[in-house]
Amino acid sequence: MNYGFCENRPFDLIAIGRACIDLNAVEYNRPMEETLTFSKYVGGSPANIVIGASKLGLRTGFIGKISNDQHGRFIEKYMRDLGIDTSNMVFDTAGHKTGLTFTEIKSPSECSILMYRESVADLYLSPSEVSEAYVQKTKVLLVSGTALSKSPSREAVFQAIQFARKNDVKIVFELDYRPYTWESPTETAVYYSLVAELSDIVIGTRDEYDILENTIDGQNERTATYLFRHRPSIAVFKHGVDGSYAYTKDGDVFRVQAYPSKVLKTFGAGDSYASAFLYALVRNEDLETALKYASASASIVVSRHSSSNAMPTIEEIQHIVSVHA
Amino acid sequence: MNYGFCENRPFDLIAIGRACIDLNAVEYNRPMEETLTFSKYVGGSPANIVIGASKLGLRTGFIGKISNDQHGRFIEKYMRDLGIDTSNMVFDTAGHKTGLTFTEIKSPSECSILMYRESVADLYLSPSEVSEAYVQKTKVLLVSGTALSKSPSREAVFQAIQFARKNDVKIVFELDYRPYTWESPTETAVYYSLVAELSDIVIGTRDEYDILENTIDGQNERTATYLFRHRPSIAVFKHGVDGSYAYTKDGDVFRVQAYPSKVLKTFGAGDSYASAFLYALVRNEDLETALKYASASASIVVSRHSSSNAMPTIEEIQHIVSVHA
Amino acid sequence: MNYGFCENRPFDLIAIGRACIDLNAVEYNRPMEETLTFSKYVGGSPANIVIGASKLGLRTGFIGKISNDQHGRFIEKYMRDLGIDTSNMVFDTAGHKTGLTFTEIKSPSECSILMYRESVADLYLSPSEVSEAYVQKTKVLLVSGTALSKSPSREAVFQAIQFARKNDVKIVFELDYRPYTWESPTETAVYYSLVAELSDIVIGTRDEYDILENTIDGQNERTATYLFRHRPSIAVFKHGVDGSYAYTKDGDVFRVQAYPSKVLKTFGAGDSYASAFLYALVRNEDLETALKYASASASIVVSRHSSSNAMPTIEEIQHIVSVHA
Amino acid sequence: MNYGFCENRPFDLIAIGRACIDLNAVEYNRPMEETLTFSKYVGGSPANIVIGASKLGLRTGFIGKISNDQHGRFIEKYMRDLGIDTSNMVFDTAGHKTGLTFTEIKSPSECSILMYRESVADLYLSPSEVSEAYVQKTKVLLVSGTALSKSPSREAVFQAIQFARKNDVKIVFELDYRPYTWESPTETAVYYSLVAELSDIVIGTRDEYDILENTIDGQNERTATYLFRHRPSIAVFKHGVDGSYAYTKDGDVFRVQAYPSKVLKTFGAGDSYASAFLYALVRNEDLETALKYASASASIVVSRHSSSNAMPTIEEIQHIVSVHA
Repeated sequence: MNYGFCENRPFDLIAIGRACIDLNAVEYNRPMEETLTFSKYVGGSPANIVIGASKLGLRTGFIGKISNDQHGRFIEKYMRDLGIDTSNMVFDTAGHKTGLTFTEIKSPSECSILMYRESVADLYLSPSEVSEAYVQKTKVLLVSGTALSKSPSREAVFQAIQFARKNDVKIVFELDYRPYTWESPTETAVYYSLVAELSDIVIGTRDEYDILENTIDGQNERTATYLFRHRPSIAVFKHGVDGSYAYTKDGDVFRVQAYPSKVLKTFGAGDSYASAFLYALVRNEDLETALKYASASASIVVSRHSSSNAMPTIEEIQHIVSVHA
Repeated sequence: MNYGFCENRPFDLIAIGRACIDLNAVEYNRPMEETLTFSKYVGGSPANIVIGASKLGLRTGFIGKISNDQHGRFIEKYMRDLGIDTSNMVFDTAGHKTGLTFTEIKSPSECSILMYRESVADLYLSPSEVSEAYVQKTKVLLVSGTALSKSPSREAVFQAIQFARKNDVKIVFELDYRPYTWESPTETAVYYSLVAELSDIVIGTRDEYDILENTIDGQNERTATYLFRHRPSIAVFKHGVDGSYAYTKDGDVFRVQAYPSKVLKTFGAGDSYASAFLYALVRNEDLETALKYASASASIVVSRHSSSNAMPTIEEIQHIVSVHA
Repeated sequence: MNYGFCENRPFDLIAIGRACIDLNAVEYNRPMEETLTFSKYVGGSPANIVIGASKLGLRTGFIGKISNDQHGRFIEKYMRDLGIDTSNMVFDTAGHKTGLTFTEIKSPSECSILMYRESVADLYLSPSEVSEAYVQKTKVLLVSGTALSKSPSREAVFQAIQFARKNDVKIVFELDYRPYTWESPTETAVYYSLVAELSDIVIGTRDEYDILENTIDGQNERTATYLFRHRPSIAVFKHGVDGSYAYTKDGDVFRVQAYPSKVLKTFGAGDSYASAFLYALVRNEDLETALKYASASASIVVSRHSSSNAMPTIEEIQHIVSVHA
Repeated sequence: MNYGFCENRPFDLIAIGRACIDLNAVEYNRPMEETLTFSKYVGGSPANIVIGASKLGLRTGFIGKISNDQHGRFIEKYMRDLGIDTSNMVFDTAGHKTGLTFTEIKSPSECSILMYRESVADLYLSPSEVSEAYVQKTKVLLVSGTALSKSPSREAVFQAIQFARKNDVKIVFELDYRPYTWESPTETAVYYSLVAELSDIVIGTRDEYDILENTIDGQNERTATYLFRHRPSIAVFKHGVDGSYAYTKDGDVFRVQAYPSKVLKTFGAGDSYASAFLYALVRNEDLETALKYASASASIVVSRHSSSNAMPTIEEIQHIVSVHA
């Protein structure tokens, strides 16, 4: 299937947004108060997605701002070592820190996080730090919703979107909603709908689409109808254990079930889902296959301890898909 | 000529943005340091435009936030007394003050202003204070660029635009660029281009279009080409004493000269221009006539002491046009 | 009487704090909404006090930050023309504006003000802009309470106090409480008591002392006892039309009645009171005379339109005192 | 020796300031970029000092604000389990987070820290949350310099100092200077000198006293002379491996050498020093013994991995002192 990606681009996927640090409880199945040791990983939705995509074989790059300290340097080196192009990752010169996420795993179904998002470096990426020459080198620009939550990162994303539209780069909007740093639900809805209307593909959970529409009982059908009045041609709705759906502007609807998994924690499921989905699209697989890859990838990551390190290979994904065919 | 305005709407024009106080030097032709008395007027570009349009006979309304003090009450009453609907003007409950503009008239060609725009009430209008039921009552929504300069006013404008598009309300974007409160030129360009691409008609000086394009040597032809790739169908370029131009998506270009005037000061010229231009459009006059009305209106206001109080009647405008025909 | 002022100092009085603009209603005895013209004066408590003291013949100087615009330049020139040393008035380089006070005179007993105090220049005076060489040139340093309401002005005042104590400069603390910009009553009480304990003379209304003590039913006797456990040797309590009291560490108490006056408005009474009181002290008049001068000065200013321009001469003051002797 | 502590107080020592989280590198002797695991401890100078003092047998309490999350609850429980009274530790209700310190141990002599201090809960302790009834229950109030670095914590400290002075509680000022969150060196010097002048005992490194005096080449003799013109009666100057000095208002000077130690890292040395010094004073040991206890305590903590957990017992301290007698 052909999704209209421009050929002859040096990158398949460039993401814009946050690259942070996850501090995962080493001793788990208990409240975090009783955890005394934490393991350090690269985290943050768009970073995880390019890490996953890179492991699957896509040529990837990242646009973002990181702290000029031990954490920022760790992130940049980790991503570079995986083959991700980090030439457009900017070190913050104003002393802003890397965002942190402490994870708490009380039980497979009771996970929570403790986030440090106050004045973090990623939200200080400015529009003048986004390069049109760089954006035009990719087939796909992945935009993460959290990067819209505060200025100047918000404007940097709009700048990247403008460059992408001007240069026939497909825009994928991963809603990635985090309540932190947003001022109000109406503010979120304003920017989520603005960006969704300008994107080619939108991916999110049903709850995240409700945030976008500032409603509490949204329906996929209605959401898709709204989006298809604008630029999007594909909308993906994730319903957790109930599987996920892809709607197309042509009127098709696809659904796949979630694959069974021995769940350790729920973090990272969405990021691994998106990376495998985008991998399949770039490889011109049909939409149903893309949903299966996405779902298989998520089922693997939830059984492992980290998000970024846990990203599967294409062989692992295809193995799961074939076993459940 | 038919511009596609929806008929059967109770309002011709609703503006969103700031309504402020002008304090004009009573003793002028001197530096403000030597001025000891000031006269108080309602001011602020979108307020002036609806005041002008109301005087010309349009049915108008205003969406904005004003201070809950003597200045805010003065503004609301002044506009209400002129027949402007003020039901959607909200009093600020957080103690923010009305913006102030002290005007200095050293000579007709040397005018400057001293603005108080720090934490002013108009920039605190929030998206939840914009009513879809109200926006859908008008033919035209006028958006003022300065209202984009800070959150939450910025999001309130995007909310109004979304309501306007959904309800077939024509969007007019008056660039109205003021350097205050903007963080950077790239930030301004990001929001100006986003809103311009979503508007039906764009009005600005050549300098303001350069701000929108983040360039220093823009050309009308090129700007119009860019805009017409998106939603706009008319773009008006003002060149001060060198007259003004209207470009249309259909490929027409109109030009009118500035009318001669005994200039007292230059303030208010742009606002009176816009109000007469929109009046003509709503009355389905052709574009050349609209430009003439606009130009005549500006020539009258620059010869008078205030901006809002000085707005002319239709007879005064038509008199000037006919004299110079 | 000898108050221990150092002789051989080039200045009698240097004040630290705000110098602002008053915009007084030209048409009064009505709500401000109906006032259309305003007269411009220099204002702000410590500025008014040095203006008053300068008119009485004291050698005065001022430490403060003013806006680098028409208003700031007007203030500096006005004060310089009166003979006040302005060499330590600093122009703000960060774009902060001069504070404004619009006055409303509904009737002699119903006066109110509308203040613009958001990010005003005077509150940005920094401790590094206070010169020890300058502070040591004066007999008296006048500290205005409002200058404590925000950093870095707050630290600039503490710096000036430290220099004053080190160089045997008497510190006079005029409580000058304005609710604007303070975060909480406890914050105000913390700094007011810190500064009062470090001062030699404290002047305030009974209400202001209640703010200092964070109480609602303070008594002069108790307040004086508290203050005299620390550095102060004189405490002045103003009770409006009921007159005023001076307590001394030695146990004396003096009282004078308010002089009758044809009141136009109440603004400026406190500042004229302080300037005449300090004039008398510097001239080594006894405390009772100082209270009389203060009271007479206040009775004159409340009968006139402005605060700064209205400051009386010593002859005018002595005339009133002698008439009512 | 008698230092004038009030007898019959239920607490020996109450500290005010920050209680935070240390995340110490599990794999050390390398850059933090290569550390993948961190151990969690309670940290923050005043928390460490009361922890150390509590282990030595003092009856202790803590005044501070902690985050209402897993980190805040961990801190409160850890301190309570050690017997520290936590009844005046307040949970933040505005979402502020606990401060974090990641420690990097490249070598025993190359240690650095990466601090998260942006909008942390401890700096939001407000003056109204400090109880006079609580402060008057202790012999000693320990004030930590970092708590002065921002409002409202700064005012909370001034409030506590006022209560202490009013109720004959001895005030110990541990300079504990951290560059984070201070606006300028002059701001720091203003508040450090204000508080030092109000304290009974001041403890700091020579570098920290230079900060207090806003100088670069301070001398202990001169500093002591300055302090003794005000309230302090003892000043302790720490010179790292070169030992430390105690000056008294009576003119005595004591010095002790640093004890030899197998240094793992330098963190926590100052806090263990202060806790043992204060323990000795409360037990009415002479000043030379207090310096020895302090020095011995520091030599133990620098040989261990954490700061808080590593605090020694009195037997361990006395053993070192006796071995080197």
